[in-house]
Formats: sequence, C-alpha cells, structure tokens
Amino acid sequence: MGAGQASSGSLAAARELGALVAERGWIVLTGGRPAGVMAAACAGAKQVRNSLTLGILPGAEGAGSDVDIAVFTAMGDARNTINVLTSDVVVACGVEGPGTASEVSLALKAGKPVILLAAGHAARVFFESLKAPGRLIGADAPIDVVRLIEVDLAIPRWSP
Amino acid sequence: MGAGQASSGSLAAARELGALVAERGWIVLTGGRPAGVMAAACAGAKQVRNSLTLGILPGAEGAGSDVDIAVFTAMGDARNTINVLTSDVVVACGVEGPGTASEVSLALKAGKPVILLAAGHAARVFFESLKAPGRLIGADAPIDVVRLIEVDLAIPRWSP
Amino acid sequence: MGAGQASSGSLAAARELGALVAERGWIVLTGGRPAGVMAAACAGAKQVRNSLTLGILPGAEGAGSDVDIAVFTAMGDARNTINVLTSDVVVACGVEGPGTASEVSLALKAGKPVILLAAGHAARVFFESLKAPGRLIGADAPIDVVRLIEVDLAIPRWSP
Amino acid sequence: MGAGQASSGSLAAARELGALVAERGWIVLTGGRPAGVMAAACAGAKQVRNSLTLGILPGAEGAGSDVDIAVFTAMGDARNTINVLTSDVVVACGVEGPGTASEVSLALKAGKPVILLAAGHAARVFFESLKAPGRLIGADAPIDVVRLIEVDLAIPRWSP
Repeated sequence: MGAGQASSGSLAAARELGALVAERGWIVLTGGRPAGVMAAACAGAKQVRNSLTLGILPGAEGAGSDVDIAVFTAMGDARNTINVLTSDVVVACGVEGPGTASEVSLALKAGKPVILLAAGHAARVFFESLKAPGRLIGADAPIDVVRLIEVDLAIPRWSP
Repeated sequence: MGAGQASSGSLAAARELGALVAERGWIVLTGGRPAGVMAAACAGAKQVRNSLTLGILPGAEGAGSDVDIAVFTAMGDARNTINVLTSDVVVACGVEGPGTASEVSLALKAGKPVILLAAGHAARVFFESLKAPGRLIGADAPIDVVRLIEVDLAIPRWSP
Repeated sequence: MGAGQASSGSLAAARELGALVAERGWIVLTGGRPAGVMAAACAGAKQVRNSLTLGILPGAEGAGSDVDIAVFTAMGDARNTINVLTSDVVVACGVEGPGTASEVSLALKAGKPVILLAAGHAARVFFESLKAPGRLIGADAPIDVVRLIEVDLAIPRWSP
Repeated sequence: MGAGQASSGSLAAARELGALVAERGWIVLTGGRPAGVMAAACAGAKQVRNSLTLGILPGAEGAGSDVDIAVFTAMGDARNTINVLTSDVVVACGVEGPGTASEVSLALKAGKPVILLAAGHAARVFFESLKAPGRLIGADAPIDVVRLIEVDLAIPRWSP
C-alpha cells in the first residue's frame, strides 16, 4: 500500500518490493490505479515471469496496465477495507498520504500484520501508540520485508 | 451467478459451464462461498488445467476450496455490485433465489451483458420488462453460453 | 423505493404514499436523489408538518431538496443494501427499473417485508417464484400500503 | 468519532461535546454502537431537548439506545467512509484506536475539516505530516470545538 502521489524513494522501494514479492510466488495486491506506489509495485512484479498482480479499484474502470486481475468496486475509499481484509500481510511503502494511513489503521484493526517500509518517525511513533490487535513491524529495505514475510510470518506461496 | 441453495439442474449446469469457460481461458468469477452454484462453477473450472477462479466473498473468511483468489469484502450482499462490475459478462445459472435476482438486476443497471441460462419463464418475462441499459440474452445449455460469450460478445481470453 | 425515471402513475403514487407515511409518524427513507420516485415520495412527506425524510445517496453529494437527513455513501448501487437493511418495511412504487428490482430482491433476501404497490403482473409472478425469507405483499393503492404497515406489520411510530 | 474502548477522559469529553453540539442545533453523527465514545456522545446529546442523533452502524442491528436514527450498513469498517462523507465536520475525541485513526485519515483525504480534541502529541504530529486536502485543527476542550464549528467553520444549524 502507498500513496497515489509518492516520493521517488517510495516509488523505487515499491518497484523493488513488487519484484521481490513476485519472485517468491506471492500475489501482489494493490489499489490498482495507474499511479504512485500502486503502479510501481505492479510494474516491479510484472518484470517477473509467472507473476500475478491483483488490483482492487476504487472506481468502475481505470486499472493500471500492469494489473492482471482488476476488481472494480466503485465504492471509492470504502474499498480500502477490502484491500486490507484480502491481504495476508499489509506493507506500507512510506506513509505519506491519508489513504495509506487509513489502510494501515484498518489493517491494525483487522488484526493483520503490518510492515512499515521506510516510514518516517512520526508514523512509527503514532501507529505504535494505538491499541490494536494487529502486529506492527518496521523494515528499512524491501529485502527485509520479504524476509519478514517468509521467515517471521511464514506466509505460504500462492499457487492456483 | 446463482443461488447458494440451488436445484440439481442448476448445479450440473454450473459445473459444466465452469469447465467450458475455463477451457476457453477466461477467469471464472463467483461469490466464492463453498455452496450451491458458486461451488459447482469453481469445481468445474478447476478440472481444467491452468484455470483461474476468482471469488468475491461476502465475509472476511470462508472461501471455497476451489477458489484460487479470494477477495474478502466483509460487506455482505453489498458485494454483489462488485461481482457485477468486475465481470465482462454475467451468467445466471437459474434465477432461483433473491441474491441471483439482485445480481441480474444490478448487472442490467450497470450496462453489462447478462445471459440467463435455463431460467424459468417468470424470470425471463420480468427481466425483459425492465428498462435497463444492459443486454439480456437467454441460453438453453452451457455450450450455448460460451458460444455467445466468444462469438456474439467477442470477449477476449485472459492472460496474466 | 422506485425508479429514478418512473411513469407518472408511479410518481403520483409515491407522492401520495410519502404524505400518508409521514402523517403516521414514520420516517420516509429513499435513495435521496432529486429524481423520480425518490423525489416524489420526499416531496409528499414534506407537505406534512414534523415529517422527517432520510436519503441514502449513491454519491458524495447531490441530495434532493426535500431530503432532511442525507447520508452520503459514495458507493453507487452498493448502497441499495443499506437502504434495505435500514428500513422496517420496503415499499416498491412500481418495479420499472433494475435498481428497484435489486432492492426488492435484496429486501426479500434480508428477510424484510416488501410491499409491491401497483406492480405489474410480471414483477409479482417473478418475485413470488423466488425462495426467500422475506414476506411479499401486494397493494393496489397508497392507502392500502399504510394500512398494511400499521395493522398487519404493526410498525411503531418513530419519535426522537 | 472515537474509540469503542476509550479512556475516561475521552468519554467525558465526548459526553460534554455531544450535549454542546446538540444545544446548537446540529445533528450528532456517530458509529452508533452502544460503546465508548459513540455511546457517550449520543448520551450527552439526548440530554438536550429536540436533539437528533444519527448512528451509522457496522452491522445489520445493534444500535445504542440513544441513537434516534440508525442506518444499518452491514459492511463493517467500510462504513467509516460513509461516516466521514456524511459529516460536515469530523471531531475525534482522542485518537486511541485504529478505527478513529482510519476515520481521521479518510476525512483528511475527503477534504473534510477535522478537529482533534485532546489528541496526544504523536497523533497531532503524524496527521500534520500527511499531504492531504482536509484541514486539521487542534482543540483542548469541547467548548473550543463548538466555537470552531460555529465561528471558524460557520456550519449552519440543522432543521428538518
């Protein structure tokens, strides 16, 4: 997860993370629009053979070109809840915008593990202050994220 | 689309249709629960090599075992709108319950093509009476449905 | 409930019904847009002193001028489920469009009592054919609807 | 807005705020459950003659006893978006839980004015760091909140 308008650092991290996640055989789930962290993560994933990207869109059309399976909700930001509930792990590539902040919050409420990748100090301190069932983990680099998912969280690979 | 509690005729048709749709390289999208027409269509599809099934669930868990990709909405029947908007074509395997009736209605409102497979007389007469942008087509057998999708509607095959 | 584009008969019935419902101290709940049956029912209700109209909108703005309390969902037709779950009784003023058909279907699925006011033969036959927990009742005129709500269904008046 | 499980300070503030808001003729909108800040704000409001409370519930039933109008969404936390879009101003009574954090985030994204009442340092610093169209204002006491709503934001009173 990450902002539609994101910094170059977040975009590069998202692209690298998308590729690493796809290489390990997990599905890359994003908000599906052709913008920001969503597009970067999907673009990274699609450089990998046999990768699969799932986009859950706020509208009834307008999926990015690197989204393999587009789910159209036409319910705006109410779809953020679906993104979170459909994910085994939620990774925030920077917490720069309010959409990402809402997804991290909803994921913590739903009891999902949340990895904050390269988040600022304010975001980490704030989310750690919340009373929530979900587990919050910090990571500095995309390679740390996939190690956390694979080893600490032991998420199995996906196969159809 | 079809009822969670369906007649044996609808279940057999759903299973056959799931296989035929998967053979042609399209994704089989259902409501994802391990019941009725949803489960039968997915089971049919998964007999086909390289098939892909997408389930859009009303809850936060509980996908059927033949669902490859489960999207969890936790919004009950409000997810029927998502099923319809995400589909290129909506096929109703019998219109026996109110959930299927709502999906056919929402699909016609959203301007989607809707194929009524082996629907009763009352359903056909009623849906034809509605003023709606979507196109309504009747079909007698699963093989007719895939011919309609392929030839009349010219829906392209899916590839990741 | 009723179509955004409705016949003059349905509009007149909705207006009369809105007034009768408001006179008995119930809240008039509609889809809230300034069109069709929704607008007519609210306009009827607002001719009554101390009436209250609740509109549950598909968008983030655009409530009709006779809507006292506008709830903005921005989730399109997925809000039809909310309309139905929030109502004690669902009354369809004609079943001319697919939106109304979806609401009648969802209400029957949710186990709500549904009154079809001046519905056509095809609609009555179809909805009676569905296996659903909700109770379906026909009515010929608005005054019959309020008698059904008050006597048969014994819905209490609303007071803040 | 505020947590279902909240500190005594947040509950007292919510109760006082509910009464002050109702006295000025505005509708008190909450999540509607009989718990925490939601219940306290409604209880405060209902001490005021002619007050009106609107609850937008996550479930299909279970509204608190001080909720005059209950809107049942049955879509869990996806209803947080509706709460925010339906409000003229969003007031967070403490930001102690992830649900409130998601609502503040979604409100800032939707461009709504958000008042953080007695929020901790971490919450204020974090939300100020986000790039968002909504306006963020801090307040120390309930009386300051109503002054902000009335004077700074010039929200008109509600009348049916």
